[in-house]
Amino acid sequence: MAVSPLIQQLMEALRCLPGVGNKTAQRMAYHLLERDREGGTQLSLMLKKAMEGIGRCSDCRTLCETETCSLCASDRRDEAALCVVENPMDVEALEQATDFRGRYFVLMGHLSPLDGIGPEELGLGMLGARFANEDLKEVILATNPTVEGEATAQYISEMAREHGIRTTRIAHGVPMGGELEYIDSGTLSHAFSGRRDLS
Amino acid sequence: MAVSPLIQQLMEALRCLPGVGNKTAQRMAYHLLERDREGGTQLSLMLKKAMEGIGRCSDCRTLCETETCSLCASDRRDEAALCVVENPMDVEALEQATDFRGRYFVLMGHLSPLDGIGPEELGLGMLGARFANEDLKEVILATNPTVEGEATAQYISEMAREHGIRTTRIAHGVPMGGELEYIDSGTLSHAFSGRRDLS
Repeated sequence: MAVSPLIQQLMEALRCLPGVGNKTAQRMAYHLLERDREGGTQLSLMLKKAMEGIGRCSDCRTLCETETCSLCASDRRDEAALCVVENPMDVEALEQATDFRGRYFVLMGHLSPLDGIGPEELGLGMLGARFANEDLKEVILATNPTVEGEATAQYISEMAREHGIRTTRIAHGVPMGGELEYIDSGTLSHAFSGRRDLS
Repeated sequence: MAVSPLIQQLMEALRCLPGVGNKTAQRMAYHLLERDREGGTQLSLMLKKAMEGIGRCSDCRTLCETETCSLCASDRRDEAALCVVENPMDVEALEQATDFRGRYFVLMGHLSPLDGIGPEELGLGMLGARFANEDLKEVILATNPTVEGEATAQYISEMAREHGIRTTRIAHGVPMGGELEYIDSGTLSHAFSGRRDLS
């Protein structure tokens, strides 16, 4: 083998990154070694810190390095609204796109009995306790518009109904800027049946 | 900002990898945090080891963690043939594709006066010393077929000629499996003027 064992090991380690195969790992390894050792050292440090230091928020289950995340710890958020999402990235996306000022609950997945992911794994007990103990006016279900996401939303909406809390689901329909002829029939049928009065 | 500062820092550090922008860095960070902490920890360790431990081979200038690389240290290589390439990755490619059993010299770049890369930066003094002191029969110039690569090959071939060493250049031409109509005119003209007798 022409390549040094340590470079080989670095390439193998880089392949743990999503979307990185042999060739990309090779390019990354040589790029860092030839042109950006400082960046590589910094990346090593941040990886170590993050892998060891990042845990779960005790209120909303999102990933963070503190006991409660900054959104849960903030006293400037509306305590009457709770938005349920599947992943931490969804929180970021909603924060950037909407003016929602309530709190979040991050499931870290969706119900998927075949993969052994039930209510327990999604922290639905914790969510039920929040339904019981907090003075919630609205639970917004922002799980993904997939079969599993819909099933999860359905399950949680029934939990919320038992506590007499209003539940809403984000709208499904035609995405902005899309063209009707290119949109899949499931989405189009949802958009059509979910039509609203123009005021 | 919704995301924890440590995750933010990890995403910024990941952007030192070539071809990784904001969105990919985010996907990588969450993938490691949610699904592969072990891989992330291993990557951190290998990066640290490699950034600190990888140096240059004292004979051929390639990247390796030992004083001389495994190819230069091997006593099973032909000492009469030397192949000059631009990058360590070229060594790997040639080792995999050819049955060349000689040694290599890695320039770590090409002559590029505008970027301040002259003979000194490419270790041509070291190469000249090898021309003078070793009993070389052939120097194979395998720099890239670009303007800078050609100029570098030309420069080195003149150095070798002064020592009376035969120099060869890898062939330019139509790549295997290519179709003539899609090949650029420069390559086609090279392939045509470099035509060989069929034996």
